[in-house]
Amino acid sequence: MIWQRRAIGILFLVLGIQAGHAAERNVILIIGDGMDDHQITIARNYLVGPRGRLTMDSMPIRGVVQVLTVAEDDPDRPVYVADSANSASAMATGIITSRGRIATSAHLDEDATSIVELAQSSGYRTGIVTSASVTDATPAAFVAHINIRGCENPTSMQDFEVMGDLVIDCSQDLKANGGLGSIAEQIAESGVDVVLGGGHMHFSFKREDGSQTLLELAEQSGFQVLNQSSDLDSLDVAHNGKRVLGLFSEEVMPVRLRGENDRTAEAPDPSLLNSVYWALGSVEFPEPMFCEDNPDFKGVPSLKKMTDFALDKLSTDNSRGFFLMVESASIDKQSHVRKACGSIGEVAQLSEVLDSALDFAAEHPDTLIIVTADHSQAAQLVPDESLFKAIGVPVFTPGQLVRIKTPQNSILAVNYATNSFPIEEHTGANVPLFANSVGVSLIDSYITQPELFIIMRDFMELGGSSPEPAPLQLEPGPAARGR
Amino acid sequence: MIWQRRAIGILFLVLGIQAGHAAERNVILIIGDGMDDHQITIARNYLVGPRGRLTMDSMPIRGVVQVLTVAEDDPDRPVYVADSANSASAMATGIITSRGRIATSAHLDEDATSIVELAQSSGYRTGIVTSASVTDATPAAFVAHINIRGCENPTSMQDFEVMGDLVIDCSQDLKANGGLGSIAEQIAESGVDVVLGGGHMHFSFKREDGSQTLLELAEQSGFQVLNQSSDLDSLDVAHNGKRVLGLFSEEVMPVRLRGENDRTAEAPDPSLLNSVYWALGSVEFPEPMFCEDNPDFKGVPSLKKMTDFALDKLSTDNSRGFFLMVESASIDKQSHVRKACGSIGEVAQLSEVLDSALDFAAEHPDTLIIVTADHSQAAQLVPDESLFKAIGVPVFTPGQLVRIKTPQNSILAVNYATNSFPIEEHTGANVPLFANSVGVSLIDSYITQPELFIIMRDFMELGGSSPEPAPLQLEPGPAARGR
Repeated sequence: MIWQRRAIGILFLVLGIQAGHAAERNVILIIGDGMDDHQITIARNYLVGPRGRLTMDSMPIRGVVQVLTVAEDDPDRPVYVADSANSASAMATGIITSRGRIATSAHLDEDATSIVELAQSSGYRTGIVTSASVTDATPAAFVAHINIRGCENPTSMQDFEVMGDLVIDCSQDLKANGGLGSIAEQIAESGVDVVLGGGHMHFSFKREDGSQTLLELAEQSGFQVLNQSSDLDSLDVAHNGKRVLGLFSEEVMPVRLRGENDRTAEAPDPSLLNSVYWALGSVEFPEPMFCEDNPDFKGVPSLKKMTDFALDKLSTDNSRGFFLMVESASIDKQSHVRKACGSIGEVAQLSEVLDSALDFAAEHPDTLIIVTADHSQAAQLVPDESLFKAIGVPVFTPGQLVRIKTPQNSILAVNYATNSFPIEEHTGANVPLFANSVGVSLIDSYITQPELFIIMRDFMELGGSSPEPAPLQLEPGPAARGR
Repeated sequence: MIWQRRAIGILFLVLGIQAGHAAERNVILIIGDGMDDHQITIARNYLVGPRGRLTMDSMPIRGVVQVLTVAEDDPDRPVYVADSANSASAMATGIITSRGRIATSAHLDEDATSIVELAQSSGYRTGIVTSASVTDATPAAFVAHINIRGCENPTSMQDFEVMGDLVIDCSQDLKANGGLGSIAEQIAESGVDVVLGGGHMHFSFKREDGSQTLLELAEQSGFQVLNQSSDLDSLDVAHNGKRVLGLFSEEVMPVRLRGENDRTAEAPDPSLLNSVYWALGSVEFPEPMFCEDNPDFKGVPSLKKMTDFALDKLSTDNSRGFFLMVESASIDKQSHVRKACGSIGEVAQLSEVLDSALDFAAEHPDTLIIVTADHSQAAQLVPDESLFKAIGVPVFTPGQLVRIKTPQNSILAVNYATNSFPIEEHTGANVPLFANSVGVSLIDSYITQPELFIIMRDFMELGGSSPEPAPLQLEPGPAARGR
């Protein structure tokens, strides 16, 4: 779109319009964890119908982001599927690293400075909002530095067992060993102005030295700690000038929608004859179901409510501006556990956040809004009636299937089949990118994930204090042909 | 991008530039069948590496297209996954129809006028290039009208058995019954200037009345029939002013790349113990392999060679312009049969076609180039090492897996698991859209598939002779918020 930009530049010149910058400058980065084109299309079909539009469908900038991951043992070797830790690290710091790492480099384990740290040191306010635990990989990469995402609190730093076999060890990051401590400790000691989400349990543990809980540590370092949705309604809390740590659930926050009676995907059930030979017998599919409200969601603030609070808090009496990252975390988490209704509800939550961000930007013109995903996910929108149904033989996925009754009297089928483990895999497709008109001169329609960091850094004019990423980190390939 | 367009419009006004139209006006529509974001990312990773760019990655316009399909028995009911017939019909004619239909409406079976027919009646030349049979669904929708895509030649019009069970019946379209006949007959009698691809076998049959073969019919109706790649090198053939039907293989054309020794995806092989309980035992994965040249590809012209011939033929001594549709068909077909190397090679073929189109447009500025897919496909780029590998239990897809050794010394894993039938399903994600700078004022970054027809029709100024699509066919939802 180079010629367009030139044309617009010339237009400004001709009309004598100054593109000069206001003092206030805000970035709102909205991450839909695992929100790939299947997730968006599934949500669009369910929420507004295939001929409708989600708010993101009307954004002035739409493109894709190529996710970049490398091997831990050989950082020159590409790995083609990311996790949320390395992909959030790319967005937060501009590095390309290995799976599981939080803002630290592959193999060398060096800390990479994040956009939050740069923004803070330049006088911007900063905020983190997530529907996961605030210690989860995506928010963590913006605030902390550690070699393994699982080291969320002081009790999970060494000899920490996950699922019986995997033993996590972050002992080099223990405070006793000169490190920064667990993710929760790093958040409690951070200078972030607003941190909202789940993960209360991680802060109820004592510090590594046993002197106090992390909640006490957070209060000591200047946070007002909230844990009720109604706390966010208090004008006093919003405008008292104190930094806020809001922890509204023990771990990940409850999602908005679920399948009927919390049903998940189920395996189609072939007849005995079909097990003998694929072209024989018959198959029973899971019964179609409606999506229903998740009763547990009532107890927690919505992602929009947290975002609205954060926007208010970050913008009140602030002429410098802010950086805010908002994550709709459970598009991914519900896809891992094969709950299509759950993912749909969390795309809806993200959509409401985007509405809030656009409303805010309408009042604060120098606000750059970026919406993207960190990686693609397992869920596939598949035919409810097989393309080969007319052949007359049983045709069905070897994975697990959700069949959703839609408001338009049809059935939306979602397949999960990346593995047979209790948790599905991520996938490796390039992910969607959206931005508001403020991004027109800044964002190409095809970028790599670390370039998101560069774009935000340059918009906030943080260049002076940021080291140029190493060559490994930026090789976007031949320049646009621009034809 | 409304404000951008306005800005550019004002710029033209201010600078006194006329946006006036040259007499010549060309449209090149390039369709990657099944070319979704997974297919593109898999091909990018293999062909240029994850930090490289395919030509399409540098196109000035990038967006997505929402595919729209309806049920045959109730055209008000959405169906969420398309086939190539209804999706090509949407692009070719602007209708939303049911799966399997070629430019005919769902339920009512009414013929819809295609962009090729409109262009011809307005004096444009027209061309169809495909790596499938020219009678296959995608090219057929631009030239023919019939109720079932399988009715490709006179022998497959009634009581035609597919796979033993499915019986195809297009008897109402028999010439004897006042219809237009099979797809091959409709092509042989069409006024298209250049038709290139596979499908020779369909034209070797006799006409419905037994009077002559379809090859003879084509010659009688003015086509010069070619069947050798070397025929395309002849300057005489290119410039003799005759219309051309080139049929370079019996059915679909051979693809460029294949797995080692034509290996396809294979099922991971769990140990006996693992079959007893998922967390026990071990699993053997398919051996990684290189992609290799398909020896059969040498005998046929590449998609680029056919496109270059068509561009030459269509543009020589032509001041009016042309419509050309080029389909890289086997991105889809190779994905159906779980051949990831095959799909990669066909994305490479499409990329070369795009290079040719861009070179042509550099010399012919009023050339609109659009690249898109018709629907998404089964292949998923999955982790070669499971996210859960460290847990120590066997984790593997219930589907089938290809593990490709890449030029960057890594392994690219592609999963196929939409069914256990010999042919995978399509999927329903919105599909990619690219255009050159000529499309800036014409194409939004989010459109529905029938809008592609409107965009091409309006660019070629065919409006007068085209009936406005019915309301069902155009409800793109609330207007862009444009913020």
